[in-house]
Amino acid sequence: MPDLRTLSRYREQFEKELFNSVLPFWENHSPDKVNGGYFNCLDRDGRVFDTRKHIWLQGRQVWMFSTLYRTVEQRPEWLDIAVSGIRFLRDHAIRNDGRVWFSLTADGKPVQMQRKIFSECFYIMALAGFSRATGEGRYLIEAENLLQQVWEWSSDLSKVGRPVHEGQIPSSQLAIPMILLNLIEEVAGDTYQRYSPEIDDSIRRMLLHVHEDRQLVFETVAPDGSFIDNPDGRLLNPGHAIEAGWFLQHWAQRLDDPKLTETAVNMVRWSDKAGWDTESGGLFYFLDSGNFSPTSLEWSMKLWWPHCEAMYAYLLNYRLTRRKEDWLAFSRVTDYAFSHFPDPDYGEWFGYLDRNGTVTHRFKGGPYKGCFHVPRALLMCWNTLKELEELTADS
Amino acid sequence: MPDLRTLSRYREQFEKELFNSVLPFWENHSPDKVNGGYFNCLDRDGRVFDTRKHIWLQGRQVWMFSTLYRTVEQRPEWLDIAVSGIRFLRDHAIRNDGRVWFSLTADGKPVQMQRKIFSECFYIMALAGFSRATGEGRYLIEAENLLQQVWEWSSDLSKVGRPVHEGQIPSSQLAIPMILLNLIEEVAGDTYQRYSPEIDDSIRRMLLHVHEDRQLVFETVAPDGSFIDNPDGRLLNPGHAIEAGWFLQHWAQRLDDPKLTETAVNMVRWSDKAGWDTESGGLFYFLDSGNFSPTSLEWSMKLWWPHCEAMYAYLLNYRLTRRKEDWLAFSRVTDYAFSHFPDPDYGEWFGYLDRNGTVTHRFKGGPYKGCFHVPRALLMCWNTLKELEELTADS
Repeated sequence: MPDLRTLSRYREQFEKELFNSVLPFWENHSPDKVNGGYFNCLDRDGRVFDTRKHIWLQGRQVWMFSTLYRTVEQRPEWLDIAVSGIRFLRDHAIRNDGRVWFSLTADGKPVQMQRKIFSECFYIMALAGFSRATGEGRYLIEAENLLQQVWEWSSDLSKVGRPVHEGQIPSSQLAIPMILLNLIEEVAGDTYQRYSPEIDDSIRRMLLHVHEDRQLVFETVAPDGSFIDNPDGRLLNPGHAIEAGWFLQHWAQRLDDPKLTETAVNMVRWSDKAGWDTESGGLFYFLDSGNFSPTSLEWSMKLWWPHCEAMYAYLLNYRLTRRKEDWLAFSRVTDYAFSHFPDPDYGEWFGYLDRNGTVTHRFKGGPYKGCFHVPRALLMCWNTLKELEELTADS
Repeated sequence: MPDLRTLSRYREQFEKELFNSVLPFWENHSPDKVNGGYFNCLDRDGRVFDTRKHIWLQGRQVWMFSTLYRTVEQRPEWLDIAVSGIRFLRDHAIRNDGRVWFSLTADGKPVQMQRKIFSECFYIMALAGFSRATGEGRYLIEAENLLQQVWEWSSDLSKVGRPVHEGQIPSSQLAIPMILLNLIEEVAGDTYQRYSPEIDDSIRRMLLHVHEDRQLVFETVAPDGSFIDNPDGRLLNPGHAIEAGWFLQHWAQRLDDPKLTETAVNMVRWSDKAGWDTESGGLFYFLDSGNFSPTSLEWSMKLWWPHCEAMYAYLLNYRLTRRKEDWLAFSRVTDYAFSHFPDPDYGEWFGYLDRNGTVTHRFKGGPYKGCFHVPRALLMCWNTLKELEELTADS
């Protein structure tokens, strides 16, 4: 069990990384002063290597700076960044039918639309975070309305253009109920009772993916939760399952549900056990639960975001269980992450390592990496470590 | 310059690998005795790990066994394999409108349709190869009709469902004219004059991607051939450019065009120079010509197929130029390939290595790897080495 000095050492590490390295990188290099919004394809030193704007990352960065402004300090420069992003999004990212583009040119012309709902989800996340930070209720109303629409689309993806063919095996994706539950957390705030049916349904759908008998969390299952024996059904995505674990844990705490608390603790522990590379360290990106090789070329790589999610999920487990195994898991993944991903020379974290831990991609922001997983995890861990310090000092 | 003994040693290496290791693997493990067609997702030892059938690979395997039957030996078992595949394809893979599915269930129910034309292309390749092997003209007529349709689609991919948005930069993909030129080679055979306009147009479109001033072959250029300065436009795909080089070289020889011969030799040489990893050996999968990190996670991996294409393209260069540098390039890539990819225990080649040359995926067949690049390259190299032996013995 960590003593106060150990807790303080970790807390300072997170604090320094967040405020001296990660946030300055995005504050300095991402704002597009001409068009608004953010450049999100940034080379190691912050140079823009692609001016296109990816809406997942635009939405997430609005949420991030809104949340910093609301929960850490009301710095005007943080609000300015959030304002610039929310304006760009509302001016360019959404179509009249509620669909949200995947990517735009720097000045907001549409480039790509996905047959998925994630662009819409991160757009909602931006609106909700911004509204809660500024108190401007109209953004929350927009977020609620769009969430209603996305909720309907989510149960039938053919409504967003996903083709349906006779030979497809009906299936459920963990990503869908998981992001919806997270959005309800953002949109509903403390008045979540009005979303009770949606909350119950999202939790029920997520739990279909948790197979207690095998101690595994599957990314894709049949609609009744049963196992699908093909590469999609066998797929494990440990980082995603760990993130799903802490999303569920937040609701278990809010709903004061001890059974759900235990399940969420286990989802995180099992996914660490399945996903940790005992040879080279770090969490695998993908695994095949039947011990075949996953077909994705990048399966054995170590990505920044599963490690970010794991740091917070393991620490949250420890705060709830006070079990040594959870602290050791937290310190193991944190020590791995801090010794492999940060770039002390230019700030922010590298995103991609090979199995052995060597950096393979030098950029800090790309089509799928922006100002989100690193600062969110650092912020949540910093807050949780502060709590633990107080609890430890009091005891 | 290689002496006769060296040539014979290489020829025997290719011969043994093709007939004793690679072909037996597919003959033994891929045929679906119940439904016809082939299982193409095969684990290291040939075990089926996914029963779905991917049409690129079904079409290519029909072509491969048809070509073996036509050009090597009229073995009934090779014909049987080709017949089983062509029947499965014609019964299940094509829709009434001429579109061809990307993947099917084992018994032929549609699973996935791409908004691309490659499934159609490999379907045509199968028909043409089978017709030339068996003399059954009706398959060639089908191939010619579908090629006509694909030719029209190829100049406007919105016809196969590719969305067009205001912010997209108009561009040309090397893959399109390249596969069309290869198909004309397969469909037209010796009577290619009737395709003269299409041949000229495909060659013209391919040459837009060859930038002599920079000695680079770009995967994506503007419709007038000019450089696009974003990650798509900067992308180099050395294996693809090398394959395009030998496709063009076949036409340069057939059309007796010395300028095109020289260009094709250079495309291959430049792409080797740009793509060879001087640190760890092997050809990179992708590079960014502006020296940024490519955004694809697998950019630094070493894949089987670029090495297969390179073995043949470098050997073809040598047969035409008789320059030592081309022989050395051939022996370098061949020695790398044979010391990294083959699996003497179970046959066939592994498909995927990390940058350092360690096997990352143990399967022999997957959604994009089937019975094609390895046996095609081994067969073409074997034939070319036999020619060189004869020329050397005569001199």
